[in-house]
Amino acid sequence: MSLIVQKYGGTSVGNAERIRSVAKRIKKAQDDGHQVVVVVSAMSGVTDDLIKLAREIHPTPDEREMDMLLATGEQTTVALTAMALHALGAKASSLTGAQAGIVTDHVHTKAKISDLRPKRVQELLKQGHIVIVAGFQGVTEDNRITTLGRGGSDLTAIALAAALKADVCQIFTDVDGVYTADPRAVPDARKLPEISYDELLEMAGAGSKVMQARSVEFAKKFNIVFEVRSSMNDNPGTLVKKESKDMENVVIRGVSLDKNQVKFTIERVPDRPGLAAKIFNALAEGNINVDMIVQNASSSGEKTTDVSFTITKDDLAKTRKILDPIAQEIKAGAITHRENAAKLSVVGIGMKSHSGVAANMFDALGQAEVNIQMISTSEIKISVLIDLKDAEKATRAVHERFGLSK
Amino acid sequence: MSLIVQKYGGTSVGNAERIRSVAKRIKKAQDDGHQVVVVVSAMSGVTDDLIKLAREIHPTPDEREMDMLLATGEQTTVALTAMALHALGAKASSLTGAQAGIVTDHVHTKAKISDLRPKRVQELLKQGHIVIVAGFQGVTEDNRITTLGRGGSDLTAIALAAALKADVCQIFTDVDGVYTADPRAVPDARKLPEISYDELLEMAGAGSKVMQARSVEFAKKFNIVFEVRSSMNDNPGTLVKKESKDMENVVIRGVSLDKNQVKFTIERVPDRPGLAAKIFNALAEGNINVDMIVQNASSSGEKTTDVSFTITKDDLAKTRKILDPIAQEIKAGAITHRENAAKLSVVGIGMKSHSGVAANMFDALGQAEVNIQMISTSEIKISVLIDLKDAEKATRAVHERFGLSK
Repeated sequence: MSLIVQKYGGTSVGNAERIRSVAKRIKKAQDDGHQVVVVVSAMSGVTDDLIKLAREIHPTPDEREMDMLLATGEQTTVALTAMALHALGAKASSLTGAQAGIVTDHVHTKAKISDLRPKRVQELLKQGHIVIVAGFQGVTEDNRITTLGRGGSDLTAIALAAALKADVCQIFTDVDGVYTADPRAVPDARKLPEISYDELLEMAGAGSKVMQARSVEFAKKFNIVFEVRSSMNDNPGTLVKKESKDMENVVIRGVSLDKNQVKFTIERVPDRPGLAAKIFNALAEGNINVDMIVQNASSSGEKTTDVSFTITKDDLAKTRKILDPIAQEIKAGAITHRENAAKLSVVGIGMKSHSGVAANMFDALGQAEVNIQMISTSEIKISVLIDLKDAEKATRAVHERFGLSK
Repeated sequence: MSLIVQKYGGTSVGNAERIRSVAKRIKKAQDDGHQVVVVVSAMSGVTDDLIKLAREIHPTPDEREMDMLLATGEQTTVALTAMALHALGAKASSLTGAQAGIVTDHVHTKAKISDLRPKRVQELLKQGHIVIVAGFQGVTEDNRITTLGRGGSDLTAIALAAALKADVCQIFTDVDGVYTADPRAVPDARKLPEISYDELLEMAGAGSKVMQARSVEFAKKFNIVFEVRSSMNDNPGTLVKKESKDMENVVIRGVSLDKNQVKFTIERVPDRPGLAAKIFNALAEGNINVDMIVQNASSSGEKTTDVSFTITKDDLAKTRKILDPIAQEIKAGAITHRENAAKLSVVGIGMKSHSGVAANMFDALGQAEVNIQMISTSEIKISVLIDLKDAEKATRAVHERFGLSK
């Protein structure tokens, strides 16, 4: 008998009918002779509704209270999923993150899992129960409810798979697997049968909606092979695992697009050592994830530079709040931000041993008349910041240039 | 500095605007120099929506899972209320029932409070926080989420007031206080400045929506004086306390109407000792609250009797499920139920020392052409079961007969 961890995202459990359909799939896994642990997200739309409600009451709600609020979303789904399994005659019990032993640090709204104590999960499994665990949430050592941030339910599933030494970890979502590009932008995008952790990591970091980086990092660290697949059909998905020799023969695995970027520029930062560190330390302390960073010498010839960087839209207000006093303190100029930005990336572990990938990408963008605002590169990824209005056109151009539909 | 416990019902926190308005009231209590603990219910409609959702998935949802589901309602409100207080510049922290130390037995959906360990509430108060506690919910010793049943938030407030030795306990609701009758049925009903625990108990048991019996019982046991008042205005409410000599001079304090009754009849129960006990034990084990009970000798002259009793509508399906096998086992006849029933009661501690109250009530009903189906009496209450269609007419007739508007 093997142990399967399954995770279902918000769309998969978006209404009563879908929850019933997910329950059938879960029940089948048990009928096939497996022990089953299920992690579910909040029903789609619920988290957004709660955030909206909170903002009606406070423009920048306290993060501890935000966690208290948002944790209700997943708690609702676990109870309903357990009921749906009961309706099919299965034994099932739901657990909150706290009850499942997901212990975290105190960084509310973006907590990190610090320990896993799945004793109760194991007891229930022994009693023949399907165990439904609320994703996205945990509890601190002193019993405060925390949430794990975006993609937190994936993290819950992978962490549980690691702690329980599960044989299989399946991430059910509303997409069929990982594609060479977003099929909505690129009609001839192709589903990948497998992808390495590092590639998926770079794609996640580059805005691919399949999975957040931290979940993939966690899986990589503990070498948890997992499958991303659809909860709407029985098609095989994409297997995510350690890179193999075979994988390295492909130069570019996929193209990824992040339309959720905001570009900040702090003008006329005095050109003294330590000032950049001051800015980015403050942002780090505020738990703002800064993505691309560029520093331009000012054209005026003065001893100042312009510093630009990108963040995700969610952090816009918070970033502004952190930057304003610092800019004053260091006597920098205006702070501007630009919301209509998108980040386009090409990713592939084969890139390491091939030169000319960047030039090829820039050429494709140039021919498509797409202007490049910022560039950043890693060992296996090249990203450019472009205008949001060019995003789809640019993705198709790059996808075609690297022959990804074949 | 005194300690105030305030409780706000679902209507009082029914939307963002009302939560903000409640927050102002709470803040004012702190500004007046008090320590404040607040208990809130789920936003009105939320619990019903969750129940509806659950029933879409399972006709009779598992009660453990139901508690898991319903507890999210109050958890949502506490977070939002804390945020609203932050928006006013107050220090405030929310707690779930579990975090506030509300320990209960294992009777899911109708749990009883077995212990109170409000250590964290006290710590937060010491730090100058307003503490917002989720009503209606608790946790078992082995960390399962429970709910306290209807009116559970009142119980949470009164139990916390007792455990914290609060100076004042205020139950804010959508009514102004306790009236001599439901003002919607009886336009000249009058607000009572005070009422004894026992009278309110009988009115609660008789369907008065102000408060559930168990909360009043709890307050009586620990001698917690509390005030029922409106969250919509600043009018003084009704003080609920131990009976005084003065109170006994009033024969009838009020008239109460319960439109939520269902009358069950088990026909031709063999007339043998122990059979009634068998029936009502089974119902008690199923946590069904049986209200009025009448046993009629069958007209046919056989050695059987008809047993009738009333329950609340909520328990209809469950009661049926429990009765069917028992009726078969004891070889009784058909089980019928009648949903369109209402229970009308007159309540007053002065009744003890006055005779003729029942006769007076029945006469008023007779003159109003209201047919009486069942009668039950206690020391300070007389109840009759009547047709739902006669309910308002009967209430007005009895209210007038006892001169309650003066």
